[in-house]
Amino acid sequence: MRIDILTVIPEMLQGPLTCSILQRAQDKGLAQIVVHNLRDYSTNKHRKVDDYPFGGEAGMVMQIEPVDRCISALKAQRDYDDIIFTSPDGEILTQPMANAMSMAENLMILCGHYKGVDYRIREHLVTREISIGDYVLTGGELPAAIIADAIVRLIPGVIGDEQSALSDSFQDNLLAPPVYTRPAEYKGWQVPPILLSGHQARIDDWRHEQAVERTKRLRPDLLK
Amino acid sequence: MRIDILTVIPEMLQGPLTCSILQRAQDKGLAQIVVHNLRDYSTNKHRKVDDYPFGGEAGMVMQIEPVDRCISALKAQRDYDDIIFTSPDGEILTQPMANAMSMAENLMILCGHYKGVDYRIREHLVTREISIGDYVLTGGELPAAIIADAIVRLIPGVIGDEQSALSDSFQDNLLAPPVYTRPAEYKGWQVPPILLSGHQARIDDWRHEQAVERTKRLRPDLLK
Repeated sequence: MRIDILTVIPEMLQGPLTCSILQRAQDKGLAQIVVHNLRDYSTNKHRKVDDYPFGGEAGMVMQIEPVDRCISALKAQRDYDDIIFTSPDGEILTQPMANAMSMAENLMILCGHYKGVDYRIREHLVTREISIGDYVLTGGELPAAIIADAIVRLIPGVIGDEQSALSDSFQDNLLAPPVYTRPAEYKGWQVPPILLSGHQARIDDWRHEQAVERTKRLRPDLLK
Repeated sequence: MRIDILTVIPEMLQGPLTCSILQRAQDKGLAQIVVHNLRDYSTNKHRKVDDYPFGGEAGMVMQIEPVDRCISALKAQRDYDDIIFTSPDGEILTQPMANAMSMAENLMILCGHYKGVDYRIREHLVTREISIGDYVLTGGELPAAIIADAIVRLIPGVIGDEQSALSDSFQDNLLAPPVYTRPAEYKGWQVPPILLSGHQARIDDWRHEQAVERTKRLRPDLLK
């Protein structure tokens, strides 16, 4: 899978894309993530990519031309499954969406910044708008990193132990059961004795009960 | 406001916390964001912070001791409004939550990683669990950056033009209206003529109508 991320602040994505699982996926050749600086596509001598909004409002708006030039250059090289724009009014990201997107071949993600992007970009150039949740952020860079992280970790071979992703929250509409590790007692706080019992079948039953109980209590909507 | 972030992968937070608005807020002295490497609190000679889960399951679990030692060291220095753990089964982050948290004085955010954290951390050390959405990620680092970004930008003085944050999506339960900037025509795609008319009152009416129409069409749940 290849993911192209278009941004005016490429340095913001440095850490998130070059650590941990995302780096490992790239090292293994299972994913390629390429960050493009939209300023490289500006025809302005100051590499400007934003301007004042029409109709007099506060904030700056990202211009269509550099975005169009960058998207066109990439589309000339390969076909894209989707050109995603991260926006708080997009379709809200869910685990089933991440599962589906993890099977894409090429994805492009455009990060908005400032007050927003010229709306014609959204009408004519973008194929899908995704929100990571009902809150407003400085820009689309962190949402792009979230989308990349959520889908790349699902590509077979990226996470060492496949089982680890399958037992995550949401994959079976249940929250994950509690996990514990050494020491068995810390400041008087004990690990549930069942986990130390060695009866694997009973442990599995306990885990399932805990998952169901936690889901009923914390997220009954998932059980509907 | 001070935000302490506890993580096993501090380098993942490098870009997100040192760019754009979060850097500006720190430069202006309006926010202080301190990242702590949990390995510095390990008593293990290899600085190990994780171990195998009890009961034999895939993945590794973050141990309670380094986390407890880091939290205790910080709590000895100041009072915290909340010790937040980022988890997919936590309370789902919303804009009103971000608004409320932006008034806190000191926040701590613990990032989970690997298969999860020893559940006793969540029972005894954490005061609040927050999810940024119904999807699974590699770790809690990006969610911590999202929470920091969502709340720091709301601190008065952080965003240049206060109006800019007030007209964001969700602040009035409406999605933001479309924005446009130069050129007025691009490849035959026009800016709505009303925005070029100079009639500010009519422009304001048009923006409100667009916001209502977009919200009805895309997110009717916000209007209930």
